[in-house]
Amino acid sequence: MPNVKHMKWWGWGEEGVFFNWQNKPAFAPIVRRAVGVDLRPREVDTVDFATARVPESRLPDDLRSELMAILGAEHTVTDDHDRVVHWAGKAVMDIVKTLQNRFERLPDVVVYPADEQQVAAVTRLAVERDLVLIPFGGGTSISRSLQPRPEETRTVVSVDLGRMNKVLEIDETSCIARIQAGTLGPDMEEQLNARGWTLGHFPDSFTHSTVGGWAATRSSGMQSDKYGDIADIILGMDVVRPGGTVRLRPLPSTSTGPSLREMFIGSEGRLGIITELWVQVHRIAPERQVIAYMFPTWEQGLTGIRQIKEAEIPTTFARISDAGETEFSLATQKAPTSRKSEIAAKGQEALWAFMRKRGWDTQAMCIAYVCFEGAKADVARHRKVVAGIAKSNGAIVLGSGPGALYDQKKFDTPYLRDFLLEQQIIGDVSETAAPWSRLIPVHKAAYQAAQSAFDELGVKGWIMSHMSHSYHTGACLYFTFAFPFTDENVDYEYALVKTRIQQAFIDAGGTLSHHHGVGAEHSPWMDQDVSEEGVEVLHGLFRSADPGENFNPGKVIDSPDTQTRVLEQHRQQQG
Amino acid sequence: MPNVKHMKWWGWGEEGVFFNWQNKPAFAPIVRRAVGVDLRPREVDTVDFATARVPESRLPDDLRSELMAILGAEHTVTDDHDRVVHWAGKAVMDIVKTLQNRFERLPDVVVYPADEQQVAAVTRLAVERDLVLIPFGGGTSISRSLQPRPEETRTVVSVDLGRMNKVLEIDETSCIARIQAGTLGPDMEEQLNARGWTLGHFPDSFTHSTVGGWAATRSSGMQSDKYGDIADIILGMDVVRPGGTVRLRPLPSTSTGPSLREMFIGSEGRLGIITELWVQVHRIAPERQVIAYMFPTWEQGLTGIRQIKEAEIPTTFARISDAGETEFSLATQKAPTSRKSEIAAKGQEALWAFMRKRGWDTQAMCIAYVCFEGAKADVARHRKVVAGIAKSNGAIVLGSGPGALYDQKKFDTPYLRDFLLEQQIIGDVSETAAPWSRLIPVHKAAYQAAQSAFDELGVKGWIMSHMSHSYHTGACLYFTFAFPFTDENVDYEYALVKTRIQQAFIDAGGTLSHHHGVGAEHSPWMDQDVSEEGVEVLHGLFRSADPGENFNPGKVIDSPDTQTRVLEQHRQQQG
Repeated sequence: MPNVKHMKWWGWGEEGVFFNWQNKPAFAPIVRRAVGVDLRPREVDTVDFATARVPESRLPDDLRSELMAILGAEHTVTDDHDRVVHWAGKAVMDIVKTLQNRFERLPDVVVYPADEQQVAAVTRLAVERDLVLIPFGGGTSISRSLQPRPEETRTVVSVDLGRMNKVLEIDETSCIARIQAGTLGPDMEEQLNARGWTLGHFPDSFTHSTVGGWAATRSSGMQSDKYGDIADIILGMDVVRPGGTVRLRPLPSTSTGPSLREMFIGSEGRLGIITELWVQVHRIAPERQVIAYMFPTWEQGLTGIRQIKEAEIPTTFARISDAGETEFSLATQKAPTSRKSEIAAKGQEALWAFMRKRGWDTQAMCIAYVCFEGAKADVARHRKVVAGIAKSNGAIVLGSGPGALYDQKKFDTPYLRDFLLEQQIIGDVSETAAPWSRLIPVHKAAYQAAQSAFDELGVKGWIMSHMSHSYHTGACLYFTFAFPFTDENVDYEYALVKTRIQQAFIDAGGTLSHHHGVGAEHSPWMDQDVSEEGVEVLHGLFRSADPGENFNPGKVIDSPDTQTRVLEQHRQQQG
Repeated sequence: MPNVKHMKWWGWGEEGVFFNWQNKPAFAPIVRRAVGVDLRPREVDTVDFATARVPESRLPDDLRSELMAILGAEHTVTDDHDRVVHWAGKAVMDIVKTLQNRFERLPDVVVYPADEQQVAAVTRLAVERDLVLIPFGGGTSISRSLQPRPEETRTVVSVDLGRMNKVLEIDETSCIARIQAGTLGPDMEEQLNARGWTLGHFPDSFTHSTVGGWAATRSSGMQSDKYGDIADIILGMDVVRPGGTVRLRPLPSTSTGPSLREMFIGSEGRLGIITELWVQVHRIAPERQVIAYMFPTWEQGLTGIRQIKEAEIPTTFARISDAGETEFSLATQKAPTSRKSEIAAKGQEALWAFMRKRGWDTQAMCIAYVCFEGAKADVARHRKVVAGIAKSNGAIVLGSGPGALYDQKKFDTPYLRDFLLEQQIIGDVSETAAPWSRLIPVHKAAYQAAQSAFDELGVKGWIMSHMSHSYHTGACLYFTFAFPFTDENVDYEYALVKTRIQQAFIDAGGTLSHHHGVGAEHSPWMDQDVSEEGVEVLHGLFRSADPGENFNPGKVIDSPDTQTRVLEQHRQQQG
């Protein structure tokens, strides 16, 4: 088998790594309060692949031979396990369907090209023989951008770029690196760090996602306030198409008409296969501090963060959790295991007591984290300005202790979702971005929408949020929601909650997604987000670039398998 | 006639405003030395429109009636003067052809819509009746993005958005303004400034160009280091198309597939007509300082500016002129007219003498300007850091005197070009952007290319440059070149010099344009800049969005009237 790392076939992350609640004393109580479920000890260590009922590959023999001629036998894989790993991303419904043995259309073959020439040969073959190609990076998509269309009758090829995983060069004068699209986050940072550089791009999926995937889905990282969204980071790229390769050179800025770079970013495979990227890199900052602040209310916290932006303080990130997420976040702290952590825990309790005495409503308080990077003196000065802004909005400065905790936990969250599934709880996320003036309305609307869906389902549900990325003109709000589900009706239950939240975003002035991309999952809101005529222009672009619909059709627009369709089907069945 | 401001029909800027060399004692000598021409007193105050031989409008009567029904008689103009004002932009060859009475295809009618509804009605009519629409902002294009194709047989309509000139709203919490596309720079800043805001976008054309024009040509301003290129500034927009209006809402960031926003930016009218823009605005900074520095050499200066970027000092701009442009810039200083300016002039002479004594080659020295904005304390601190970086690269700090001079002269340069034309000298500009590591090679290549063309023409020519915009990964180099021309062969002479310089940019790793756009002028280099397959994707986008070629065809790609064609024709005639 090719030497390419993949996640668990049935869930997020590495085999053997799990969310552990038993060392977090406040966790079970908050879950009980939030969704009315009593947690059971974890039962599932792994899921035996023998239990999976995998639809057979339909790869015709002649095509297999042709692919093998291009890629070699070892890199032309029809093995069931590999096909299941590549059949979907890690949206919560992808995992539910996998665990419920409800596989839809799987790729018939997974290919592992070694280089651009092999990718080019595969794309030519795709057009000649009318195949469907789906580029695969790390497989972390939670927008369903990796599934074949359920009704696809043609041969489906998953093109896994995992062997193309090198930082090819660094122009140290220009702060530019050339990186192969299949390079996983940690592998890339390791290669860059070794020479004193960093990309600074850390999406939640970082440990399992690739540079090419970030480009194809218009990703944004935890530190994008400083390092930029992926569209700011990418300066040029190679995109393999059947007619030839689009080569966009590394340019700091250019006025060459409509931006091709910005067409391929977010294209989710529909315009060809991204094989290489020119990106800007940064020297690793000499000093880095993450400071925590507690604001009395969500409104004061948002105002505080906005004022930090207004004051043009360079922050690496500035995030704030709402009251619900603050409570949840405190509940995921581990029980003290040392004298030191015991003192810290007691100190925290004493602090809350003191605050309550001072008139704080500790149910309303919101924790914020601001990360500063740069020269030591600058970090100190910026910390001081931010502390002043925080205090003027009623906050207290908690210092660097909780910040270190944040840094350490940051990539663990996705594991929580799989754990909750096992407990018969859907836990999922939805995110948007909106102008500063719309954040409070968007936040309220999402809460109301979720609650209305929970009420309609007759379940006890939970929603919480944080502001994760901020800009001069607005910010990203990131929501996490949870509710108990039934095995029989989970499709409908999920669709109802998810669509209500998405629609609330749009109606309140937010976008359908700030950084998760569109895929099939968010495509029903495209016409409301970019307008019907905007979708028409996209249609034209896709049709002209891919008249045969050989490149990941059904993503971004024209998706047949949407949550809104699930709702319609449910209505008809009820009807 | 509609109440819309236009420039001179035969040249740049306002009637009655000219470049004056007679109060600049060093100017005539440098022109003599640079291009071997002895300046004569200015003769041309204006050009009598009666001398213009204007091709007649071919607007059919029925179309005139239909347009009048939409726009009213007053705003459906076939007057010759208005048609000449709209026949081209202000590229130097546009002006040469206008002055030589060599009009090509003129628009048959100029329409002045009052609002989006009227624009929509015109676009529908364009498709129904197979018209050609060319949107017109301020008419400052120097990339020939406004001319009809010379061989165009259909009715050509210039759509002047000059009546749509309002700042419609400001969201003060989100720093977002909604502005009509036809708003001229100064009118827009006046409306924003009145409420304490600024867009911060100041291209050289600022006084005569519009917000919609900036969007359509992917503009960049003198202060873009702080305020961003126009693509960073624009958050959303309305684009009128025959099938409906694309409405992109104001979002700080979004992951909705390929960026429609970034397709319309730079689209030069080929995808529809931009009528409104959502832009980010900034509070006017409390403190602003422009400081000048003199570096011993170009290489040291570029390194200095790069180090300022590397140190992440927030500058509003940081520009440096090469030795030639430094000399030229000093030569355009006015003769002292007061005791104060006399002392300044003597001080400057004494300084150069002192520097020569200290071993400086004053022929090699390069002047740099850095603009700081923000809180007083920050400005002071950043000035100090930049002074340190400058000195460590051998520079001396000249202080704020020359900076004030720069600020005051900044929009005057285009007038110089018309003045030189009258003196039988072509003066023009070409700009590019490249990674830091490529700036010296690009600079050298452009100089060599220009010189080779001057040699081939047997003329004494001049080229000079400055670095005008900088980024984390590279910068824009802006070249000004001049040479004496002949009335008979000016097309060939210009084409030879211009194409050599453009080709040098591309060959040395630069882009065909950093902020002047493509138009017809730069389209021959598109396949080298974004690759042949990239041009194919653009072809597909344009064909699908405008199958009838009704929207400014021949711009960005597929241009019939290029400088390379002029060269070919010359070769054939010689052949």
